[in-house]
Amino acid sequence: MRGGTFITLEGGDGSGKTTLIRAIERKLQEIGHEVRVTREPGGSPIAEAIRNIILGRENTAMDPRTEALLYAAARRQHLAEKVMPALEQGIDVICDRFVDSSLVYQGIGRGIGLDPIWDINRFATEGCMPNLTIYLDIDPEIGLKRIEANENRELNRLDLESLNFHRRVREGYLRVAEQFKDRIVTLDASVPAEVLAQQAWTIIEAKLNLNAS
Amino acid sequence: MRGGTFITLEGGDGSGKTTLIRAIERKLQEIGHEVRVTREPGGSPIAEAIRNIILGRENTAMDPRTEALLYAAARRQHLAEKVMPALEQGIDVICDRFVDSSLVYQGIGRGIGLDPIWDINRFATEGCMPNLTIYLDIDPEIGLKRIEANENRELNRLDLESLNFHRRVREGYLRVAEQFKDRIVTLDASVPAEVLAQQAWTIIEAKLNLNAS
Repeated sequence: MRGGTFITLEGGDGSGKTTLIRAIERKLQEIGHEVRVTREPGGSPIAEAIRNIILGRENTAMDPRTEALLYAAARRQHLAEKVMPALEQGIDVICDRFVDSSLVYQGIGRGIGLDPIWDINRFATEGCMPNLTIYLDIDPEIGLKRIEANENRELNRLDLESLNFHRRVREGYLRVAEQFKDRIVTLDASVPAEVLAQQAWTIIEAKLNLNAS
Repeated sequence: MRGGTFITLEGGDGSGKTTLIRAIERKLQEIGHEVRVTREPGGSPIAEAIRNIILGRENTAMDPRTEALLYAAARRQHLAEKVMPALEQGIDVICDRFVDSSLVYQGIGRGIGLDPIWDINRFATEGCMPNLTIYLDIDPEIGLKRIEANENRELNRLDLESLNFHRRVREGYLRVAEQFKDRIVTLDASVPAEVLAQQAWTIIEAKLNLNAS
């Protein structure tokens, strides 16, 4: 039996990842695939506990390398408990953020560098990497305004970082997308949601046909 | 100004590390050194929170690689908050367990391998390695009996692992000590505490003279 397809979505906050993920999920279900939508920590109690440490507003003394190791630890636990078992059962997995977030936020944003972050994430993933990653590119000012407009969404420690940080993050994503262009596809996230969903589906269909052949 | 000397103690539970650390601390103070005795998580609130996740009896579903990444994260935070600042101020630091514990317990004991564990710990330490590591070698049966006899010490999840695990750990320490023999000195921990302290001090004095010259 063929394993499931592993798709990850990347992009700054407010880029529209959640809406696109739901659209991709529906499309995959329409062609008869079983789909699991997830995001780290993904309901794993251990990964949840790790994420609580990372996002705690009181933990301002956290060293950047500690933060990077904690993200890798939560990623590993979520992979081992949720993602790997689903893929092995032939279920497609769509994950909101994955290793590229760490490459960009810790590697470039915090200045640790891409290679060291890749080292610890290679340890965490043990080769379980996405078949396809879609990066939703958007101007950070537009992304942050979208978040503020959404009253159901509380701002966390990362949101409160400066706009300059978010600009470095965007440059980082474009750099990482260029470095891993065989895996990562960049889409302009400023277009209407329906247009974005159609563009994403065209790419996914091509990838699925490639996997099936 | 010369930085402080960084000494770590390793050995299975019940090998007498705590007693020896106190003896070394007194000796260093007698020759006029300022000394900080510590162990991970060492009073760092973030590292404490990480350790609580690792040692929680309820977290039996923890993947071995998650555990290794969490140990590296707690190590990094303790180093950044407590160890590095002390060494920079010329204070000697004695630490109860350090990277060699991860090499042995996760690398060999959990079967992940030495090289992957070294990768993530190189990330965590960023080159801040001990000037000297003393490994207290003891038969695991003797070590566990010493723990059980000490009513003030509650058994944790690691203590409850099988005796076979502790035997693998001892073989692991001997292998790691051989691999890093320029840094690690092995002492027979079955001798009386005073004899052990004298042997350790002879080695430390030689190392201090080497550092001073």
